[in-house]
Amino acid sequence: MSHDRDDERLARVALCRLTEPGDPRLTGLVSQLGAVRVHDHLANERDLDGMLSDVASRLAGLEPQRELEQATRLGIRFVMPGDDEWPVQLGDLDHCGHVQERGGAPVGLWVKGPLRLDQQQDSVAVVGARSATTYGSDVASAIAAEVAAAGLCVVSGAAFGIDIAAHRGALAARGSTIAVLACGVDRVYPAAHRQLLEHLARHGAVVSELAPGSAPTRHRFLARNRVIAALARGTVVVEAAVRSGALNTANWTDRLSRRLMGVPGPVTSAPSAGVHQLIRTGAASLVTCGAEVLEQLGAAGDHALAEPRAAPRVRDQLRRRDAQVLDAVPVSSPAQADSIARAAGVGLVDTQAALGRLERGGFAVQAVGGWLLGPTGRT
Amino acid sequence: MSHDRDDERLARVALCRLTEPGDPRLTGLVSQLGAVRVHDHLANERDLDGMLSDVASRLAGLEPQRELEQATRLGIRFVMPGDDEWPVQLGDLDHCGHVQERGGAPVGLWVKGPLRLDQQQDSVAVVGARSATTYGSDVASAIAAEVAAAGLCVVSGAAFGIDIAAHRGALAARGSTIAVLACGVDRVYPAAHRQLLEHLARHGAVVSELAPGSAPTRHRFLARNRVIAALARGTVVVEAAVRSGALNTANWTDRLSRRLMGVPGPVTSAPSAGVHQLIRTGAASLVTCGAEVLEQLGAAGDHALAEPRAAPRVRDQLRRRDAQVLDAVPVSSPAQADSIARAAGVGLVDTQAALGRLERGGFAVQAVGGWLLGPTGRT
Repeated sequence: MSHDRDDERLARVALCRLTEPGDPRLTGLVSQLGAVRVHDHLANERDLDGMLSDVASRLAGLEPQRELEQATRLGIRFVMPGDDEWPVQLGDLDHCGHVQERGGAPVGLWVKGPLRLDQQQDSVAVVGARSATTYGSDVASAIAAEVAAAGLCVVSGAAFGIDIAAHRGALAARGSTIAVLACGVDRVYPAAHRQLLEHLARHGAVVSELAPGSAPTRHRFLARNRVIAALARGTVVVEAAVRSGALNTANWTDRLSRRLMGVPGPVTSAPSAGVHQLIRTGAASLVTCGAEVLEQLGAAGDHALAEPRAAPRVRDQLRRRDAQVLDAVPVSSPAQADSIARAAGVGLVDTQAALGRLERGGFAVQAVGGWLLGPTGRT
Repeated sequence: MSHDRDDERLARVALCRLTEPGDPRLTGLVSQLGAVRVHDHLANERDLDGMLSDVASRLAGLEPQRELEQATRLGIRFVMPGDDEWPVQLGDLDHCGHVQERGGAPVGLWVKGPLRLDQQQDSVAVVGARSATTYGSDVASAIAAEVAAAGLCVVSGAAFGIDIAAHRGALAARGSTIAVLACGVDRVYPAAHRQLLEHLARHGAVVSELAPGSAPTRHRFLARNRVIAALARGTVVVEAAVRSGALNTANWTDRLSRRLMGVPGPVTSAPSAGVHQLIRTGAASLVTCGAEVLEQLGAAGDHALAEPRAAPRVRDQLRRRDAQVLDAVPVSSPAQADSIARAAGVGLVDTQAALGRLERGGFAVQAVGGWLLGPTGRT
């Protein structure tokens, strides 16, 4: 059994090198034949579904055993289906179809960092534009901090803009956070994020389908997005222009029937246009803060969501008759008590008594020519 | 007959003075007994549903005939149900219940300005916070200008902030715009808007349920909001804090089963919080520009075409049924055939056949998520 697992592990490590992440032919074959048989077929140069021609050039120099040992020395582990640490929610990728010829659960994940992936099922992806505004970055940080403080794990990429702001927010709240890369977890891309990626590798987790050393490509970013969407119970898109890569993650979220949420922004801001489109078409729910994200994920439980409300107004505590008279007190052009009484539909004596009480509360004031709303009445 | 109408007019002018706008007891009695009988009962100090005690103090000094003559001298007319100019859509207020003890169609409207109310059935209300941001004011102006340029009439109040920005936008586009006041149409409130109100009275219309000379009160603002909502086919809320009066207009729009729309803004901006709440709860649809407002109102078909009927359009040669379906095809946000069928009021099978013909003509295209206007459909 353990021997079988070792063979399986070596086969999957090899397949990670042989194929591009999210190749739906591979993931289909693996779930049909098993990783060992697929690997053995290809390693023996027997064709499978036309894949051999694609992988032939990569067959030479495969050393999965050595690769695993090297990774271990770098503090990197390989996690695969059947391992305790495997995040089972990734299995949903095998049943949600393909997007732009990418799909299926990863063959395995390379992981660096102390966070155990299987213990982060309460995760929320926070993604968005690289060219984020200060507004978008601030909101992404605030939302990530709020959900992390509530015990959820934040998942994102490691790009400029929203990704990095999300990790920073989660870390500031001393919460859990996972970066999913489109290159090997030993690589630093973009270079400016070295410090943050090192910090994540010490306190959170850095994850990739790609073997250590692999370089990022556009294809790999797109394949990576499906892993972000699948790891999380829902995705929050903070800013995304109409053709942003974040909308690809949104698309995967939708396919996976996970919760898709969008943070609105100024309609004059291009980085918000894609998010507004998602909300407008009903693909995403509008959220404005972490509490609303928790509510959308059904995670509100303890973090009970109060409907956003202004502070209760003193006015609400007035007796009904006084409120009725107050409604008839003009905001400009003072009126006499008798005309207020008429406007309120309340007798003159009652009106005068009410006006006295309203004046003491600052709701009404006496001005030249009669009564006016006071400072309390205007709030 | 004309004599009856005169009696009716005098009775309604008197009732405007006797009662507060939107008193649901009055509107109920008027639709039950007729304005003349209600007026005569009250004028003869016979009680009706407990109203006499409220109106008794106002009975003395009623001079409806003189009031009408004075108004005419000021260029103000009184429009009531049965008049050619009466905006019949206000009748919906008699069938949509009450909000905070206000409701029912106005007994009549005092109008100043050249715009005929009955010709503004394609109206859209643009409302929002007094304490609007520059962002909110700019967006309100832009949206108002866009819908006004498309031939719709803008309806709003005359307050600082969004109201005034909406009128300015409509006027800048040389469009129609109506201000509904919570005081007499001869009054200027707020005083800073004298110039704009005078301009509206010369080029648009200034409207009120309240007789000339009446002062604004909080009650009257709330009653006024229902008239704004009822005059328009839909309401756009641009900025509204969580306890903004604009949400009262939104509430009326919802009750009247008119289209409610909200413009998002930064989640960090208090004046957008009320709008986000409306969108989040599904009460309002998110809109970001005038074209989306037109689409929501189903007005895109005609109005998306800026200079209509300059040259005969290919569209005009479509068979009637196809044109009907085409009018229900969205300009953005794809819709499925069944929802287009519903919008067009055409059976699903016929709709599908029509969509096939429209696709061949380039009028409609199939996109992700359904049907959209095609290149020919947009010209």
